[in-house]
Amino acid sequence: MLELLPDERLDHLLGRDGRIIQSPTVFSYSLDAALLAQFVWVPIRQGKLVDLCAGNGAIPLFLSYRTSGTITGLEIQPRLVEMARRSITLNEKEEQLQMIEGDVKTAGKQLGYGTYDVVTCNPPYFLANESSNRNESEHYTIARHEVLCTLEDCIRSAADLLKQGGKTAFVHRPERLLDIVTLMRQYRIEPKRMQLIYPKAGKEANMLLIEGIKDAKSGLKVLPPFIVYEQDDTYTAQMREHLNV
Amino acid sequence: MLELLPDERLDHLLGRDGRIIQSPTVFSYSLDAALLAQFVWVPIRQGKLVDLCAGNGAIPLFLSYRTSGTITGLEIQPRLVEMARRSITLNEKEEQLQMIEGDVKTAGKQLGYGTYDVVTCNPPYFLANESSNRNESEHYTIARHEVLCTLEDCIRSAADLLKQGGKTAFVHRPERLLDIVTLMRQYRIEPKRMQLIYPKAGKEANMLLIEGIKDAKSGLKVLPPFIVYEQDDTYTAQMREHLNV
Repeated sequence: MLELLPDERLDHLLGRDGRIIQSPTVFSYSLDAALLAQFVWVPIRQGKLVDLCAGNGAIPLFLSYRTSGTITGLEIQPRLVEMARRSITLNEKEEQLQMIEGDVKTAGKQLGYGTYDVVTCNPPYFLANESSNRNESEHYTIARHEVLCTLEDCIRSAADLLKQGGKTAFVHRPERLLDIVTLMRQYRIEPKRMQLIYPKAGKEANMLLIEGIKDAKSGLKVLPPFIVYEQDDTYTAQMREHLNV
Repeated sequence: MLELLPDERLDHLLGRDGRIIQSPTVFSYSLDAALLAQFVWVPIRQGKLVDLCAGNGAIPLFLSYRTSGTITGLEIQPRLVEMARRSITLNEKEEQLQMIEGDVKTAGKQLGYGTYDVVTCNPPYFLANESSNRNESEHYTIARHEVLCTLEDCIRSAADLLKQGGKTAFVHRPERLLDIVTLMRQYRIEPKRMQLIYPKAGKEANMLLIEGIKDAKSGLKVLPPFIVYEQDDTYTAQMREHLNV
């Protein structure tokens, strides 16, 4: 029997059959997670995947519809780990998915060096001292600000976890593109595929998807632009096809 | 009276009144030049602009329709300098435009350190040992391959020429994005605006426009995607409006 805490609700996984437990005061996934899970390369039949900063488990859940590999979510906030575990049970995916409580900064030590095929990460977007929303809870602050981990921590740990030739994908704000690519190269992850997400045609990009390969040769492909909304705020055909919404 | 050499022809400047002397065996400008000249910030009334790797003067000519500032084109191939000078005369722009024969590697020394408001550059796209078109002339080889100057030479010289706060814009292949941004930062030019050019909707980007500011603080904006052709190979409305074609 499903138990929801007082502030929780049961949401759909965008474009998928599954459900996910969310909470307006603790954590709700955003479109970023759905797009990253759809963007990243995955092995179809088997392999080991890990999602860093996994929050309430949205990316592991989304990924489970694309791969039969095993997926580990690493999250530092016990409240979110516990919420994600209930969502995994709810979707009957306990054999494929596991949530581990732990610190992204020591992910290699905790999960094993050089053993993963794929690492995804939707890291905190804002610098520790940058303001986003003053009224947010501590849970949101940790998820959205570089309080407990920085972009560099995420990229370094992704590199630690990956096999040679393994792939890692991030979603972030376009403003941080330069930091991301510089750090990726610093940790031997060569950026290979990038896609920019634009809220509407004629608007500046507001999201960046980027995938790198450990110890690969250089050469970046920029995928076609991805535009989320029509001018009338309905989803574009591209968005509907891509996420089945 | 206009004199054309046997292999030369007189072409329109895309979307402008002017004309330009071109040659299929020596040099013809491409869409890249027109888009870079339209992308870069320019001072409207006065200022000093320089175009490195100026070829047959296409970018200086295009820029002259957007600014009343003075524009210097630097080009290493005497044949192209001479061709560009005849185009300048033809368009009666001798007071605003000048072409100088010289090496981009020593542009600061030749043109003056720290005195320019804007530097543009459409550098050679291909590495020296990379194959592009085997049958091309030496003129094209020099313009298209890093034989006489590298991307780093272009970026270092742009930094040399610029005032603090001055702007420099480049057009290049998206594959080189990482090299460009790394080098820009190395030479104290902070990337601030980027636009990706896609040949058609649904295709990968094939051109990158990027502008940086000397000694600026970080923060990159990614402009709306620019798509050149419709599926039926006619120009998009965006292209027609942007370049008046």
